[in-house]
Amino acid sequence: MAETSSTMDAAGIAPRDEQRRDEDPVVADVEADVEIAVRLAAACGVDRSSRTDRARWLTVLAEGLEAHRDELVALAAEETHLSTTRLSGEVTRTATQLRFFAGVALEGSYVEATLDAPDASLTPPRPDLRRMLRPLGVVGVFAASNFPFAFSVLGNDTASALAAGCPVVVKAHPGHLRLSRRVVQIAHVALVEAGAPATVLALVDGFDAGTALVRHPLVSAVGFTGSTRGGRALFDLAAARPAPIPFYGELGSINPVVVTPAAAAADVGGIATGLAGSFTRDGGQYCTKPGLVFVPEGAGFEQALVAALAGATSQTLLTDGIASAFDAGSAALAARDDVEVVFTGDPATDASAPAVIATTTGAFVAAHETFLEECFGPLTVLVRYADEASLDAALAVLDGSLTGTIHHEPGEDVTALTEALARVAGRIVYNGWPTGVAIAWAQHHGGGWPATTASVHTSVGATAIRRWLEPIAYQDAPAGVLPPELADGNPLGIPRREDGVLAAGAAE
Amino acid sequence: MAETSSTMDAAGIAPRDEQRRDEDPVVADVEADVEIAVRLAAACGVDRSSRTDRARWLTVLAEGLEAHRDELVALAAEETHLSTTRLSGEVTRTATQLRFFAGVALEGSYVEATLDAPDASLTPPRPDLRRMLRPLGVVGVFAASNFPFAFSVLGNDTASALAAGCPVVVKAHPGHLRLSRRVVQIAHVALVEAGAPATVLALVDGFDAGTALVRHPLVSAVGFTGSTRGGRALFDLAAARPAPIPFYGELGSINPVVVTPAAAAADVGGIATGLAGSFTRDGGQYCTKPGLVFVPEGAGFEQALVAALAGATSQTLLTDGIASAFDAGSAALAARDDVEVVFTGDPATDASAPAVIATTTGAFVAAHETFLEECFGPLTVLVRYADEASLDAALAVLDGSLTGTIHHEPGEDVTALTEALARVAGRIVYNGWPTGVAIAWAQHHGGGWPATTASVHTSVGATAIRRWLEPIAYQDAPAGVLPPELADGNPLGIPRREDGVLAAGAAE
Repeated sequence: MAETSSTMDAAGIAPRDEQRRDEDPVVADVEADVEIAVRLAAACGVDRSSRTDRARWLTVLAEGLEAHRDELVALAAEETHLSTTRLSGEVTRTATQLRFFAGVALEGSYVEATLDAPDASLTPPRPDLRRMLRPLGVVGVFAASNFPFAFSVLGNDTASALAAGCPVVVKAHPGHLRLSRRVVQIAHVALVEAGAPATVLALVDGFDAGTALVRHPLVSAVGFTGSTRGGRALFDLAAARPAPIPFYGELGSINPVVVTPAAAAADVGGIATGLAGSFTRDGGQYCTKPGLVFVPEGAGFEQALVAALAGATSQTLLTDGIASAFDAGSAALAARDDVEVVFTGDPATDASAPAVIATTTGAFVAAHETFLEECFGPLTVLVRYADEASLDAALAVLDGSLTGTIHHEPGEDVTALTEALARVAGRIVYNGWPTGVAIAWAQHHGGGWPATTASVHTSVGATAIRRWLEPIAYQDAPAGVLPPELADGNPLGIPRREDGVLAAGAAE
Repeated sequence: MAETSSTMDAAGIAPRDEQRRDEDPVVADVEADVEIAVRLAAACGVDRSSRTDRARWLTVLAEGLEAHRDELVALAAEETHLSTTRLSGEVTRTATQLRFFAGVALEGSYVEATLDAPDASLTPPRPDLRRMLRPLGVVGVFAASNFPFAFSVLGNDTASALAAGCPVVVKAHPGHLRLSRRVVQIAHVALVEAGAPATVLALVDGFDAGTALVRHPLVSAVGFTGSTRGGRALFDLAAARPAPIPFYGELGSINPVVVTPAAAAADVGGIATGLAGSFTRDGGQYCTKPGLVFVPEGAGFEQALVAALAGATSQTLLTDGIASAFDAGSAALAARDDVEVVFTGDPATDASAPAVIATTTGAFVAAHETFLEECFGPLTVLVRYADEASLDAALAVLDGSLTGTIHHEPGEDVTALTEALARVAGRIVYNGWPTGVAIAWAQHHGGGWPATTASVHTSVGATAIRRWLEPIAYQDAPAGVLPPELADGNPLGIPRREDGVLAAGAAE
């Protein structure tokens, strides 16, 4: 951990000595590891596997995790300091995700099978055209610090990529390396027993492995969950390649919340209790932590939040690096003249305890770049608004965020608030909290920069699979070369579009 | 045109004097033009328009083009040297595209409306979630030199972006600037008469306008059709922005063709005639021009192609810059020791005449980087293969391409050839030619680098609209804030997915 905290941030990104590669035999070893992992993955043949096979592989991975739950939870608790209750819930979540993507693969609409019959009367004439999505190739996945299961070795990126038919090379997060290695062992046993190639999934670790992975010519796309700084550095690497590849980074997010005057008047205590639970949950170490809360002036929100935090305890944060960054970030906010510290543990004896900072819309707008920087950990900033106009002015300076939340009373017109938050946020939550991201067909976990590098896509939910796919069209193809998804008569019974008309598939 | 050829390439990209901005009042004017166009576009309100309205706007744009066909064709012929027959066909194509995207907007499945009912029994619990795609924002479109209508002001990028609900700022191609200005005038009249904001579409021109457009903070995505060099420079600009944006570049493509021994034996004359027509069509100035043709040794293909080219005439190329690049590229190939010039006009008196170069698989593999560089214009390279093994070796070094074509006999097993070409190409054509890209739901016009900057997407066909959309999810939203596409009971009757099940919509 000491090595981690001194040379790497939460995303595993460190300042780089460009000379090191030539001088250090360890770096050469790491590059050989990446080279072997990527070449074997590229050759493993998963792109030719059936959707049925891949669904079975995802299912046995879920079963493997569950069968080793106690061992894995204990290991994860030791490395991450997260509670065993939370970690066991995360194992369940991860298994659910794997089974969910098995279902997505089986259902088959994700391939977007589309057939157009020839029509010589058109300008230009239309030949027989059949289009579907196919796997992109080897996917590099950067595991997250804060979800040692659900956004790591067998997390959403891996599950969706395997479902798509892409092999995966995971860059381990240094904060839970032993867990990562153990999960890969369990995965390999489960995969091989199920008839899958073991080389469909590999683990590499270390900073140099990460950059080598992004640069490798056979890597076709990268998924990343981590800090804005680390994600940006890797995004830049991916874009600068001789052949650029998509880089799907899920980065930092401030997750603004608006509490309307009516909502505060009706139940200030209930909303404050909900916020206290959400922003301190598991040490506030969620990309969906509500980090910025607009509250009506004079509604007593600060007092209610302090009361709700009465029993709050501090949480050892995931890594020393994250703890240092949190302490520095919260201290810098607390030291500002334009803020008031509403609640905090004693930073001398109780580092990384929950903290609440309050300010005004005027101060927020004037210094919004500072206030919009994510402080990863159990801290939230209350912004008191005097009236609708000052709230609007504050919402107008927001950056991209994964979520935006509105607490309102039934019957209140929240159309304008919805529009203001929808400008920046990928998911709008009403009378709830953004933490706890459901696994669903309709989920979206994305948003504008700096929350992600690719607002067009999501990293959670069924459509996360779309990131690892590219189209192919067959023109006047002989029947023998067509994938069964595009064959005449729809033998697989999947949803397809034929001559422009979308039709739900028949069950096989 | 002299200014164009000396300082800009086909894509309108020139070497840049970074000091120029501060010194040259013209540059400041250009930046003001872009600033005004983008700000007005961003505020035009098209993101709030209905799909029905946008379908009508696309239809009146098609009608406007057709109503001015003769005037526009004459202007285009003067600026591009393309034939009036070709240009009139292109007007028809462009109007068809506009109407096609009107249909895509009306049909409504492109919004991917998805609803999940709450389920508290899940881990994590699932709230009410409703997801759809929404317009990204202002789109910058770089017009192409070679399609003054179909990939320019009102071309595929513009039509698909408007259908999605995005305003468009077009960077005019300098090769047909007067035409571009006239088309925008016609478009503005048609749009305003149909009740659309005129500011939904704007035209800017000049190199500095292009870079200012890609850099503008309110521009959300860019579509580009042009050279690999120009596209790469702009891709790099887009990726280097403080907030990076998607850059969809459709760049150069070599479009490999394989003629099997059986196909050559059966009809060498017919295939050669087809190739002659395809690679010389409109001066070979198509991104889908077959530029590399693998022919069986000793099949007499060269002789048949020479015979087919007997009446071939030269075509004045689109711009002086393209003509110079073609002459230099074909001369460089002709001067190589490892090639044979099969056919060419006299370069002294007949510049830019059709040319055919032949080589062997051995020479091709050894110097494939040279042979794979697109020579835009009426030139094709024949690669003679002795046997299957040498063909396989040659196909293994191919780069990304928009298309791959196979000429084969009925009953021949072309599975392995299909796989070899599908590795690099986005569309596989059988017993046909890649030029003439149909407008269809099942079309795909894309491929790996260097054919495009984003193989995950297409620039032609219904799904081209996906480039200009990003998801939004509503969690436990009050009914009043939901777009009608997500309302209970599916009032618009569009195709939706509800609780995981895809259902075709009912007609309104």
